[in-house]
Amino acid sequence: MTPLIFIELTAVIVSAIYGILLAVRKGMDVMGVFTVAFAVAFGGGTLRDLFLDRTPLFWIGNPHYPVIVFVISLLSGFLLGHLRRIRPLLPLPDALGMALFTLTGTAYASEAGTGAFVAVMLGVITGTFGGVLGDLLCNELPSLFVPSPLNATCGFAGAWLYLGLLHFSVPERYALGVGIVVIVALRLAAIRWNWSLPAVREKGGRDHSGT
Amino acid sequence: MTPLIFIELTAVIVSAIYGILLAVRKGMDVMGVFTVAFAVAFGGGTLRDLFLDRTPLFWIGNPHYPVIVFVISLLSGFLLGHLRRIRPLLPLPDALGMALFTLTGTAYASEAGTGAFVAVMLGVITGTFGGVLGDLLCNELPSLFVPSPLNATCGFAGAWLYLGLLHFSVPERYALGVGIVVIVALRLAAIRWNWSLPAVREKGGRDHSGT
Amino acid sequence: MTPLIFIELTAVIVSAIYGILLAVRKGMDVMGVFTVAFAVAFGGGTLRDLFLDRTPLFWIGNPHYPVIVFVISLLSGFLLGHLRRIRPLLPLPDALGMALFTLTGTAYASEAGTGAFVAVMLGVITGTFGGVLGDLLCNELPSLFVPSPLNATCGFAGAWLYLGLLHFSVPERYALGVGIVVIVALRLAAIRWNWSLPAVREKGGRDHSGT
Repeated sequence: MTPLIFIELTAVIVSAIYGILLAVRKGMDVMGVFTVAFAVAFGGGTLRDLFLDRTPLFWIGNPHYPVIVFVISLLSGFLLGHLRRIRPLLPLPDALGMALFTLTGTAYASEAGTGAFVAVMLGVITGTFGGVLGDLLCNELPSLFVPSPLNATCGFAGAWLYLGLLHFSVPERYALGVGIVVIVALRLAAIRWNWSLPAVREKGGRDHSGT
Repeated sequence: MTPLIFIELTAVIVSAIYGILLAVRKGMDVMGVFTVAFAVAFGGGTLRDLFLDRTPLFWIGNPHYPVIVFVISLLSGFLLGHLRRIRPLLPLPDALGMALFTLTGTAYASEAGTGAFVAVMLGVITGTFGGVLGDLLCNELPSLFVPSPLNATCGFAGAWLYLGLLHFSVPERYALGVGIVVIVALRLAAIRWNWSLPAVREKGGRDHSGT
Repeated sequence: MTPLIFIELTAVIVSAIYGILLAVRKGMDVMGVFTVAFAVAFGGGTLRDLFLDRTPLFWIGNPHYPVIVFVISLLSGFLLGHLRRIRPLLPLPDALGMALFTLTGTAYASEAGTGAFVAVMLGVITGTFGGVLGDLLCNELPSLFVPSPLNATCGFAGAWLYLGLLHFSVPERYALGVGIVVIVALRLAAIRWNWSLPAVREKGGRDHSGT
């Protein structure tokens, strides 16, 4: 199993768990839970595959992926009882899934011959779109653009770091490892200490309340 | 005309009618009505064709489909006067469109050689995505995951039944017919008697209100 | 540079500026501003390329496009100070981007051999989807279907005019020029004088408030 395949499977599983936790909080039935888990686990990679014209889609070419997500969803009632104790750790599957998908997206795009900037963009889209879909399905405002958690920004930084390490001939598995650790650490730190980038403001004009 | 083509055309027409009824209720103009009808009629099949890499998209390869939806939309003011009497039957076009699209999606995916589980998932996506788009465009909360109408669940059951009948060598047109009747009946019964699946709850833990 | 390429680049830039103005109004940070600018500038054309199976996507095949949008986003704080004086002209980038994308979408679809009606539909989708995405990301109700600004309707009329001029052997650059001027003029006039199409109402029935 190559590192990318292993990372992808892990990303699917932790993203599905994150989706289940989102959906259960909303009181959904088992089919709703499965739908949200499916969307969070496969949404980002589906956009990536469509944008890069990769066929078949990764969850059609690996048909055990949706089966795994379905089984986890069926068992979610039982799993949740055990997950309760680790609930303070909840941001972890979200951050880990985002990191793993961001780097697989960057890697696949880069292999397909896109330029570095486009590869990073595809990585960020792959890493964040599942979460945006999950928020939409749960009727929450997408949290992507709320400044504090810096979701896309952490992925953006980690994807550049990964490409930079590859550029300096670091072996892929180390570049992936460093990228994952940095993205997850940045994201958890951003949540823990409530980091945010400043809002963009007009420079060189007096303040005035526009529309 | 093969059964699948006939079913697809019927699904487009009943979905467009359902979209028109959604849009008129919101006081939209004729272009808004057409847009919602277009999205409901073609949204699910478009995702299916993109996911399976079928080209051209079914409404580009059958360019009379969008023209039919446009003409129905232009006539919607007149049609509505006559539809008024059958308004209590409104859930029917919704349920029928969902059933027909679910089975065409399952059939196309199965023909394309996906496994059974992926074929059922593509059927459910094809059957439900148009309605989700219609809800979004009409600024309603998507009704897919509200437990009571069991929308995706009925399609999921019917798609497995259809594949099961094919597996036991039932001719396709009978398998399609049984699938359609079962999905529509399940869905109308779920609405009529307000069936729902239970919400997923944590097993083995005391109740506590977390966020 | 062919006229279509020049028009596409202009459409990307004015759409990005419109996206930046949307995002800044919401107090987003620079990554959020970039994301909205990216979605508004590339959303419609991405759908068009996916629907027509054009590969690579126009912003992957022209990798300087996303870089340009990124640079404009980074500079947005400074640009906004200078844009302040022309704020009463804000509807212009929106109308211009919509017009340019509508005509490129119609032209590409027509070149790909779709029928005229499908080409016009793809033009309207290309012209309007970016704005819908921008509204969604900024948590606004999509303005596409609010009757007053007639957004899709102006694009629909201009796309037919463009195809009609080509049909009567008008050279493409003149047909594009006339189409752009007409769409922008219609859209600005619709905003200025608050034009709207009437809501669709049931004909031949007494009024009654149903749900």
